[in-house]
Amino acid sequence: MAKRNLYLSNVPVEEALLKYFTALDGLLIPKTEKIPVEESLDRITSCAVYARLSSPLYNAAAMDGIAVKAAATTSARESNPLVLKAGEDFLTVDTGDPVHHPYDAVIMAEDLIQMEGSDDVKIMESASSWQHIRPIGEDIVAGEMIITGRHKIRPIDIGVLFSGGITSIEVFSKPGIAVFPTGTEIVDASLLADTPQEGAIIESNTRMFEAQIKHAGGEAFRFAPVPDDYDLLKDAVSKAADEYDMVLINAGSSAGTEDFTVQVLREIGEVIVHGVAMKPGKPVILAKVKDKPVIGTPGYPVSAYLAFVTFVSPVLSALTAGGNQSIKPQKKEAVISRRIVSSLKHREYVRIKAGRVNGKLIASPLARGAGAAMSLVRADGFCVIDQNSEGIEAGQSALIELYRSQEEIDRTLVVTGSHDLILDVIADMMSFSGDACLASTHVGSMAGLTALKRGECHIAPVHLLDEETGSYNINWIKKIIPAGGICLIKGVGRVQGLIIQKGNPLEIKSIADIRRCRFINRQRGAGTRLFLDYILKKENINLNDIDGYTREAVTHMAVAAAVHSGSADAGMGIASAAKTFDLDFIPLGEEEYDFAVFSDSLLMEEMKIFIHILKSHEFHHKLAIFANSYTWDRAGEIVNFS
Amino acid sequence: MAKRNLYLSNVPVEEALLKYFTALDGLLIPKTEKIPVEESLDRITSCAVYARLSSPLYNAAAMDGIAVKAAATTSARESNPLVLKAGEDFLTVDTGDPVHHPYDAVIMAEDLIQMEGSDDVKIMESASSWQHIRPIGEDIVAGEMIITGRHKIRPIDIGVLFSGGITSIEVFSKPGIAVFPTGTEIVDASLLADTPQEGAIIESNTRMFEAQIKHAGGEAFRFAPVPDDYDLLKDAVSKAADEYDMVLINAGSSAGTEDFTVQVLREIGEVIVHGVAMKPGKPVILAKVKDKPVIGTPGYPVSAYLAFVTFVSPVLSALTAGGNQSIKPQKKEAVISRRIVSSLKHREYVRIKAGRVNGKLIASPLARGAGAAMSLVRADGFCVIDQNSEGIEAGQSALIELYRSQEEIDRTLVVTGSHDLILDVIADMMSFSGDACLASTHVGSMAGLTALKRGECHIAPVHLLDEETGSYNINWIKKIIPAGGICLIKGVGRVQGLIIQKGNPLEIKSIADIRRCRFINRQRGAGTRLFLDYILKKENINLNDIDGYTREAVTHMAVAAAVHSGSADAGMGIASAAKTFDLDFIPLGEEEYDFAVFSDSLLMEEMKIFIHILKSHEFHHKLAIFANSYTWDRAGEIVNFS
Repeated sequence: MAKRNLYLSNVPVEEALLKYFTALDGLLIPKTEKIPVEESLDRITSCAVYARLSSPLYNAAAMDGIAVKAAATTSARESNPLVLKAGEDFLTVDTGDPVHHPYDAVIMAEDLIQMEGSDDVKIMESASSWQHIRPIGEDIVAGEMIITGRHKIRPIDIGVLFSGGITSIEVFSKPGIAVFPTGTEIVDASLLADTPQEGAIIESNTRMFEAQIKHAGGEAFRFAPVPDDYDLLKDAVSKAADEYDMVLINAGSSAGTEDFTVQVLREIGEVIVHGVAMKPGKPVILAKVKDKPVIGTPGYPVSAYLAFVTFVSPVLSALTAGGNQSIKPQKKEAVISRRIVSSLKHREYVRIKAGRVNGKLIASPLARGAGAAMSLVRADGFCVIDQNSEGIEAGQSALIELYRSQEEIDRTLVVTGSHDLILDVIADMMSFSGDACLASTHVGSMAGLTALKRGECHIAPVHLLDEETGSYNINWIKKIIPAGGICLIKGVGRVQGLIIQKGNPLEIKSIADIRRCRFINRQRGAGTRLFLDYILKKENINLNDIDGYTREAVTHMAVAAAVHSGSADAGMGIASAAKTFDLDFIPLGEEEYDFAVFSDSLLMEEMKIFIHILKSHEFHHKLAIFANSYTWDRAGEIVNFS
Repeated sequence: MAKRNLYLSNVPVEEALLKYFTALDGLLIPKTEKIPVEESLDRITSCAVYARLSSPLYNAAAMDGIAVKAAATTSARESNPLVLKAGEDFLTVDTGDPVHHPYDAVIMAEDLIQMEGSDDVKIMESASSWQHIRPIGEDIVAGEMIITGRHKIRPIDIGVLFSGGITSIEVFSKPGIAVFPTGTEIVDASLLADTPQEGAIIESNTRMFEAQIKHAGGEAFRFAPVPDDYDLLKDAVSKAADEYDMVLINAGSSAGTEDFTVQVLREIGEVIVHGVAMKPGKPVILAKVKDKPVIGTPGYPVSAYLAFVTFVSPVLSALTAGGNQSIKPQKKEAVISRRIVSSLKHREYVRIKAGRVNGKLIASPLARGAGAAMSLVRADGFCVIDQNSEGIEAGQSALIELYRSQEEIDRTLVVTGSHDLILDVIADMMSFSGDACLASTHVGSMAGLTALKRGECHIAPVHLLDEETGSYNINWIKKIIPAGGICLIKGVGRVQGLIIQKGNPLEIKSIADIRRCRFINRQRGAGTRLFLDYILKKENINLNDIDGYTREAVTHMAVAAAVHSGSADAGMGIASAAKTFDLDFIPLGEEEYDFAVFSDSLLMEEMKIFIHILKSHEFHHKLAIFANSYTWDRAGEIVNFS
């Protein structure tokens, strides 16, 4: 076996930052450049900008009318009008025209009476000196400061800079960051014909870095993936350290067989920290090559994201003189909906989904794996569990970091419970309504009802069969939320059954045949699992005879994916999931997939939009695309029962 | 005299919007385009995006180690280790490598004992099936929705889209907006040699529009200024309406001599509204040419800005499917510090400066003229006075619209009182401190102390001479804030005197000579005016003998600008203002320019930074640049007296 480089340190986050910034002391100097004002939007000034010219540039008429000598009009009044001679007593002026000595006042066109047969005018009132004249510099005085340094240029600043005679300004340059994907197995998505070869990994992290760097005010220079070759990597990084302000290397920062990065950096520079007490994100490398910061980031997408936010962002901030202030999260107190256990070995960044339910801000922890990038897409922020904490109990308050605006969170329907593809369809339709969002977490029917009971969600999607009566949902809701106050919004009828290989090579005919399959099951508490157990019991099939009864997937789509890949022969799920993967399907029954809500939440604007969508033709049309998967004759109907 | 087109309507804002959007009904259809994912940052999806590939693409090792058949390891335990044969019982895998049937588990490298003299390994524990394997689709399942439509692409979305095999996505196109500056007197700043000819106006509004359009998700196409020529304008607008999604025309929207715009639009299209009941911004034209929205905006910068925000933004929002949501202001309740009087004739947009003083959000109205663009630069937002309201009393609460973040406002020192150039210097230095801002409003010493007393500012800069004792500031503070609790932070000694023409053509020697000048004075309540009155009294000079005693400017710089322009021969002010304009100066005395603050505010972090700056060598160095204008030996010293 190849030699492995297993030794990572476990330096606490703050200590790692301190060590790194100490090593970089005096090296992170923001550069500046002079750019045209019309290209300066959102750039940060590196020094104060002073007006070159006054605005107005001269004493200017503030109205359309005539310029006069105020002292020559003192006799004019209603009872004693005064005639002013054109070309002698006044000059016609438009708004903005200069007014010169000896003229020192403007009379509005509306206050003039035109004399017949001449250009002369009559006035009924005297003018006071300097009336309707904008004095030179009224708006901007030459030499005065228009904006300070370290100011982010807005549209209005651009207008005023031009008015003040400024056509170019000094701003902080965008630091140039070289970004290297590494790894022989890495392929660029643009080079993918259709489906990549097995073993290939689509390069995505450095694409994310490019965008993060742009948001942080830097400029990314992304290179083609560098294969796992010591000398290639060494040459690439060494050259980049000469040419750019910073170098980022993705993957190869752990301690695996092919992880050259840390060895390369030790040879050509200095490794300050290798391994930080954070999760995800531990195998980060903080190094310095030729006096430039070089950071090695882990390959798992969530680790890569957090390594960027935690270590790359502060360096970029120093290189841009704080230009990326605006993407800082808001800190808020929230109720944590599910227990979070964390180790004393590291600081943990738990992704959370936030929502406001009955006035309380609720944060629900999402998937915690370093590979679960979708959970970052779905997250509204993080709950950071400090290294010296063992976690947070359900129902406790904790500080969360929110990346989504409070306003958006306030108009989000929080959906917690059973998973169905139609939730995504509804979320999409709600986003087009403009006034509401829908955010769903998939925990199964039972856990959804528990969340609803605890006031942690607005809607709990359920499909729970009462074995005694053969009816759906209502009896279970009564059992789990005995205090009542709940009603049901009818959803869809949906077909459950066996998702099997295309062409049915194992010739599966009925549920009994799963005893000769590699099966994949759903997690405990999922309505689909209850449905399977109900059928198994009815058919007298022993659980222990099923290979894979304990192998769990958490969504219908994950079951279908496993069957599609060949790692399972059959799984229980909904017809639409089989359809999406073009697999065969053996229907076993239709169930009722509905939405439990508190009755008083029906008054919420967002809930009205939700119900409106359920009843809409557009929604039914979208369901029809999954042929024979759904029925919707009662969708959106309210059932009161408590 | 030329014919004038005086008739503007006065349609209320909401009614104007309704009329316009009714006329545009069905015409504002957002277009879409397909773009590469790597270029999609901050763009808005036009439809939901579904994963094309699963991630991982196959069952993959989650650890570096070996892939085994779990069932073949069941006998392994501490007391009964099991040797696994290389190439037979296991395969070496790195994190991310595919794991195939018959292998169904991974054992970590750390749990292996290498056998000497072979590649075989020993294990002390059995493996459970599917351990340390990331199942296919664990993160993303092919066919699942990654993001909804109408979603603004973030860096993390880009990463996950690539992981899901997506390389291009459908987004809303950026609408193309043609922007025409108009007016013969308008010149492009880029064409300015040095100082424009008198009568020329530097084009700035459409530069601001370009930036506003960019922020709103559109693409601006700005044309060279169109002179006041009916046919030229007609041809330009008519052609642009064919080629672009919208046309903006700046200036020429009022009813002056040369205002062809409305006539042109009537000829080639339909004018829906001309004149809206808002201030500033009344002379707006809402029109439609060849089924495209065409908006004529006023020439005054603040009017142009507000016309854009009020009418152009909603049209752009429709054309971008709401892409500019993020620049909506926050609405907050604030105490209005000064009385705002407004007419029932229009809705008024009053610029405000906001600050948090003693926990209260305070909004101070700024200059209200349509030409006062600098006040927009300095503003934090607006207080909108509805058409049916006559205004707001000082001390009343009102809803304000904030464009600056609460966080920034919370770390801003609010400075209200006398004006000096050093306030800008300090503001600039504070912005580089990173943790504090300084926002000053210039109302004169007296009004500043009143604001401090009412708890509307943190700092009141004062230079008030007590004529009886000849001492500065403290006696006045005691008189105006008898309740005490105030201390003084010493500022600078500064030289006051007469600002006169370069070369002193009128041979002014002393204060008595201003009787043969055109003078310009400061406003009532300004310390400089008190100082003038003190000297005039001492010298027995009659106010009525001074031509211009009642002509007021509100800053030292405005006084200097008036003298520089030749519209006044002399004014009273500080040496640094004369220096800035390269004017002559006759010193009349040194005064003490200090800062009154509540003693308990000395504990504020921002106040500590302020004092630190006053004491710094860097600050003294900057003062020295205005040779002989300032002394600073006590700057930053605290004087307790109550």
